[in-house]
Amino acid sequence: MTKMTRKIRMGMVGGGDGAFIGDVHRMAARLDGKVELVCGAFSSNASRSATFGRSLGLEETRCYPDFNTMFTIEAALPSESRMEFVAIVTPNHLHFPIAKDALESGFHVLSDKPATLTLNEALSLKSIIENTGKRYGLTHTYLGYPMIKQAQALVKQGRLGKITKVLAEYQQGWLADKGAETGKQASWRLDPSRAGVSCCMGDIGVHAANLMENVSGLKVTQLCSDLATTVEGRQLDDDGTVLLRFDNGARGTLLASQVATGEENNLTLRVYGEKASLSWQQQEPNSLWLKFNDQPAQCFRTGVGQLDESAQRFTRTPAGHPEGYLEAFANIYSQFAEALLGDTPMSSPGIDDAIRGMAFIENAVAASRSNQKWHPFIISQSPLHNEENI
Amino acid sequence: MTKMTRKIRMGMVGGGDGAFIGDVHRMAARLDGKVELVCGAFSSNASRSATFGRSLGLEETRCYPDFNTMFTIEAALPSESRMEFVAIVTPNHLHFPIAKDALESGFHVLSDKPATLTLNEALSLKSIIENTGKRYGLTHTYLGYPMIKQAQALVKQGRLGKITKVLAEYQQGWLADKGAETGKQASWRLDPSRAGVSCCMGDIGVHAANLMENVSGLKVTQLCSDLATTVEGRQLDDDGTVLLRFDNGARGTLLASQVATGEENNLTLRVYGEKASLSWQQQEPNSLWLKFNDQPAQCFRTGVGQLDESAQRFTRTPAGHPEGYLEAFANIYSQFAEALLGDTPMSSPGIDDAIRGMAFIENAVAASRSNQKWHPFIISQSPLHNEENI
Amino acid sequence: MTKMTRKIRMGMVGGGDGAFIGDVHRMAARLDGKVELVCGAFSSNASRSATFGRSLGLEETRCYPDFNTMFTIEAALPSESRMEFVAIVTPNHLHFPIAKDALESGFHVLSDKPATLTLNEALSLKSIIENTGKRYGLTHTYLGYPMIKQAQALVKQGRLGKITKVLAEYQQGWLADKGAETGKQASWRLDPSRAGVSCCMGDIGVHAANLMENVSGLKVTQLCSDLATTVEGRQLDDDGTVLLRFDNGARGTLLASQVATGEENNLTLRVYGEKASLSWQQQEPNSLWLKFNDQPAQCFRTGVGQLDESAQRFTRTPAGHPEGYLEAFANIYSQFAEALLGDTPMSSPGIDDAIRGMAFIENAVAASRSNQKWHPFIISQSPLHNEENI
Amino acid sequence: MTKMTRKIRMGMVGGGDGAFIGDVHRMAARLDGKVELVCGAFSSNASRSATFGRSLGLEETRCYPDFNTMFTIEAALPSESRMEFVAIVTPNHLHFPIAKDALESGFHVLSDKPATLTLNEALSLKSIIENTGKRYGLTHTYLGYPMIKQAQALVKQGRLGKITKVLAEYQQGWLADKGAETGKQASWRLDPSRAGVSCCMGDIGVHAANLMENVSGLKVTQLCSDLATTVEGRQLDDDGTVLLRFDNGARGTLLASQVATGEENNLTLRVYGEKASLSWQQQEPNSLWLKFNDQPAQCFRTGVGQLDESAQRFTRTPAGHPEGYLEAFANIYSQFAEALLGDTPMSSPGIDDAIRGMAFIENAVAASRSNQKWHPFIISQSPLHNEENI
Repeated sequence: MTKMTRKIRMGMVGGGDGAFIGDVHRMAARLDGKVELVCGAFSSNASRSATFGRSLGLEETRCYPDFNTMFTIEAALPSESRMEFVAIVTPNHLHFPIAKDALESGFHVLSDKPATLTLNEALSLKSIIENTGKRYGLTHTYLGYPMIKQAQALVKQGRLGKITKVLAEYQQGWLADKGAETGKQASWRLDPSRAGVSCCMGDIGVHAANLMENVSGLKVTQLCSDLATTVEGRQLDDDGTVLLRFDNGARGTLLASQVATGEENNLTLRVYGEKASLSWQQQEPNSLWLKFNDQPAQCFRTGVGQLDESAQRFTRTPAGHPEGYLEAFANIYSQFAEALLGDTPMSSPGIDDAIRGMAFIENAVAASRSNQKWHPFIISQSPLHNEENI
Repeated sequence: MTKMTRKIRMGMVGGGDGAFIGDVHRMAARLDGKVELVCGAFSSNASRSATFGRSLGLEETRCYPDFNTMFTIEAALPSESRMEFVAIVTPNHLHFPIAKDALESGFHVLSDKPATLTLNEALSLKSIIENTGKRYGLTHTYLGYPMIKQAQALVKQGRLGKITKVLAEYQQGWLADKGAETGKQASWRLDPSRAGVSCCMGDIGVHAANLMENVSGLKVTQLCSDLATTVEGRQLDDDGTVLLRFDNGARGTLLASQVATGEENNLTLRVYGEKASLSWQQQEPNSLWLKFNDQPAQCFRTGVGQLDESAQRFTRTPAGHPEGYLEAFANIYSQFAEALLGDTPMSSPGIDDAIRGMAFIENAVAASRSNQKWHPFIISQSPLHNEENI
Repeated sequence: MTKMTRKIRMGMVGGGDGAFIGDVHRMAARLDGKVELVCGAFSSNASRSATFGRSLGLEETRCYPDFNTMFTIEAALPSESRMEFVAIVTPNHLHFPIAKDALESGFHVLSDKPATLTLNEALSLKSIIENTGKRYGLTHTYLGYPMIKQAQALVKQGRLGKITKVLAEYQQGWLADKGAETGKQASWRLDPSRAGVSCCMGDIGVHAANLMENVSGLKVTQLCSDLATTVEGRQLDDDGTVLLRFDNGARGTLLASQVATGEENNLTLRVYGEKASLSWQQQEPNSLWLKFNDQPAQCFRTGVGQLDESAQRFTRTPAGHPEGYLEAFANIYSQFAEALLGDTPMSSPGIDDAIRGMAFIENAVAASRSNQKWHPFIISQSPLHNEENI
Repeated sequence: MTKMTRKIRMGMVGGGDGAFIGDVHRMAARLDGKVELVCGAFSSNASRSATFGRSLGLEETRCYPDFNTMFTIEAALPSESRMEFVAIVTPNHLHFPIAKDALESGFHVLSDKPATLTLNEALSLKSIIENTGKRYGLTHTYLGYPMIKQAQALVKQGRLGKITKVLAEYQQGWLADKGAETGKQASWRLDPSRAGVSCCMGDIGVHAANLMENVSGLKVTQLCSDLATTVEGRQLDDDGTVLLRFDNGARGTLLASQVATGEENNLTLRVYGEKASLSWQQQEPNSLWLKFNDQPAQCFRTGVGQLDESAQRFTRTPAGHPEGYLEAFANIYSQFAEALLGDTPMSSPGIDDAIRGMAFIENAVAASRSNQKWHPFIISQSPLHNEENI
């Protein structure tokens, strides 16, 4: 008789009532049936946490008032029932302390991005991960799209030739209105003590930077940054442009904005090589264009048999049945769950993406404050002055 | 203390290894966390059913060799653990006997479409539903898209004026190849004893017809039909065009094909009124166009606050994070689960869609066999001759 | 020394003040500098004709009060200055008498479509052309698009395999409003004495039918037709669907409407073959899709070197500089002018397109009046009863 | 009797056999019938110039060996036949000397862009124009698109609110191949003595900059520039990104490339305001999007009656009949011809666009050479060092 397939047991910190990303994590975790939510500390208010956990169908005893309590109690449970990993879906400032505590309590971690509040925290986190031997995953959602896998495959196959240029944009409009600031989503993102040194780059620019590196296979080595606060009275950036140099000499431009009125979640990626170029848009994620100077452009589509195996296995439906954001997110969860279940190596994204992401944010902020155009991309320590490096 | 939210307990018939739609149903059922799979008869082979059920994490005792056994044993289980509804995801010929048995055993039914093998079965099913008092839902997936809800709202608000014309297309290419016929998906769809009197109209045309009526709010009253078998040797249609008259005098054209090489799942709907028109494409389902003769076209988008409440509540993410086919399917599941949990009235689609769908299929086949152009749309009994009405 | 390139001298009948298509013809004639307008009878009012001709820069003596006068006087002019061909841009009922008179007076003819008021006139016209030995061209504009030439080339190269299905749509919305009828463009199109037996099929359906045959290389042999008058009080159709059978057994559907609110000039063509399919949209005419079941779709683009020579020579700018409707129209003019200048054979479209076009219109009307579904496509004489065959 | 409408008489310098832009100018000049080519100096080789002119239908006596001769002889012709303006379509280094000579010989000038080889030349040109009192136009083609006029109207109407951000891209791929350099179009563009200090910015970046200022109504005040030579061995830039500050505090990003493999002529413009944003793409130029945070996006379309009068008058066909690049170019010609015919004021683009364009090019080059991030936008004299300021 086949062994019953078991689900990985997940706990969650954050993501209570009204949180956008917590619900997304839970849907992503559920979609493929590999993960089961068994406990949570959903709110810093114990009663709210319990109420919310119960509404999700959890046992009352596993709705915790805070993450320390959760880790302590869960660690003492029998191994067949206790939580195996924690999903961290709080505002940024709590990512590091929660991850640290979880890892040191013996739990794997799947964290929302950005990984930490500071680059230094991310560097510390790497040591903790190495010391504890636990797994660490980062939900860089957009890496989960099948067409991003296909793009990676086309680059690796050499279809583009030497890459010369990488362009990414992430345009949103929701913070164009001064009034939007009071909403739950906006308030912590614009607060340096909870969001870190950047709003726009920390929240969305880091996704674009992550895609640029992960799809092109290149690493940023230098940058020129121009961040801005468009709406008066804000302490953090809500828009910015960052010019990049990659390790093979290619150049890049990253545009990100939260004040681009009328834009929804317009993340696009273009990779230009000597032989061909790739173009992808997150809002219509099931098409990937491969363009040439001397032959008709080709349009790859999610679910069609022509895809590379590395992309095909992340699709769930035949071509023409669109898969979206939640499916991409679920791919991140499934990869993580499979690694835990099979005790196999973690696939990206993980702590190295975490460190490069935090480095991107801090380097972009530091370079933006200077009237020197180009700056080296520093990753071994914070490029910010001490007083800014909260 | 908040009552723990409970999940509705689902059993499944069909959907074993290699089945496409069974997996889709399970993902849809899981996404919103309102439904829990507790048992199944996944294959007509007992051992395979058990193996597959175990791989889904089911208890061995609740993996059944056939649906009769499942209904008998489950009906005897304590009410707090027994299955509450069954999802039927078999080939068409089994939909009716399974649904009948389930309803008469006291279970609610959520069935894949088309509802039955024949119109007469669908009419019988209605009596059974009425007699048993159980709920019956039909997974007309495309009705689950938020933009279809928005389209319905715009029509009801009178934004289009009197409707004059409805066009729907459902173009697929996968059966253009003779070789495709041997695949698991194709073999039963092309077999009259399992699929019924139609392949193309029964499998996909019925979706288009369902959308035309449900969005326009109109009912078909007459039709002219031209079905065809494009690839030699097939017993059933693989392509067809059906002209329609609606009860308000509006005209319609429905094109469906499974041999339109290069098409994926190209379902589109256009509704023209005296004041404005709507246009929607399933392959990019998050946009809905409202067009005018005398002002700029408007593009509604999933997730943006501007949507009608009836559409907005079926979105899960902010605008620009695309939702797709599985989310639409999950909306059908969630509506069904909510009706069961809340003991509230069933929202569409249900048995009336089932009957109209079967009537569409049989009327399209019957009219296609005649060289008379127009035929009344008969729904009270089969329009087919007895010998054809299997 | 190179011989000075001379322009072909054109006269025009119709196309005076307020006419849409006359101005289009003149722009098309001018674009490539191969044609020179030297005279015209622009209005049935002599004074208006003269005033309008002067505004175009014509000599007063060559602004004529009517076409008979024009042909008589021009025929008597010295050969180096007299008009060589006439462009006919009047309402439909005048096409035949003008063309007849012109041909018999020794002039070539380039006529707007539909070629005549009736099929019988078109058949007569063919005899006249043969008897006079003059050239006859028909401005089926859409054949002038480079991507239509490319589509023809791909079909001829066998890239699609055997063609199984052809779909064309021509959707307009401008006649949805009752009020639109009083405009100059609408009034004659809805008047049987000037437009002929059809408005929608005669004005735009005939373009779609022409494209279907010319791109697929197939000929219509049977049809089923459903024309309609959507707006009350009209004597002619403003909408219709026509099902087709082609000589190789392929099937077709043609949808045309002038009451599809919100549509501009939405002409699309799809040709499905056993190996691949083509898709083209007139509103974005510089892209042509070639789609496959088993490889990524390809997008051909106007102006890129990869095009077939037969398409490439009809482009004027490098790729990415969009060419449009006037350029397509100018291609028709340039082909016609080149044939006259070089005394080379006429390329399509000409009298055979004219006859098939008129046959399409009359067969569609005749078949629509019958409750028999299928009708043979009759071309040797009118399929209409005598009393209807004006 | 109406006065015969006369055409403006044009001469041309450059644009002989094999030149791309010369033919475009001639088609644009012909389209609306307001301009007549009467003479030209098409090549620096007298015999070729004559041969080519003859092929265009010119009299042999008006095919000149060089522009000086042309201006001298034409100036001596009777006023009713002599050239009235000259179109300059040579490589950049000849624009200024030809324009200067033409203006001082009493002719109006319509010049291809960039206006001159250097900013200092453009400044001199302004004095010459003022001294001679002749008209000067610059063919910034993209300003001729109806949807750009509509965009300008929407900005002026305040529909966007205060503008916060302007993005423009101009991506081409044709110079990605080393081999492309030997072509006629590439060789002079990559030669500093003929192209000036920039290839990419001078050839296409300047178009993007021009659109940004003309649509937004803002003026650049500062810039940060990063130009690059991607293909080895070139003396000039073939790619670049320029960050901008505008006079109202808005920020801008301009991306231009000639080495973006697979791109055709991908010019796009986005203007973001506090209330709404605009989006336009040159490759599909007949749609203009107006997007909002809180209502459905609107899509304006060329030719529809809803357009602003300032845009509507630049369309030639009803909506849905696409107009393209040549029509936009013809709009520039028609505006220029109307100004000359009516002796009315010149509408943009003219010498002020010329100066700002040259300033953009030189400031972008100068700023790119510095490792200081931000630089003031200098327009009163060249920002380049003397030795670079050829």
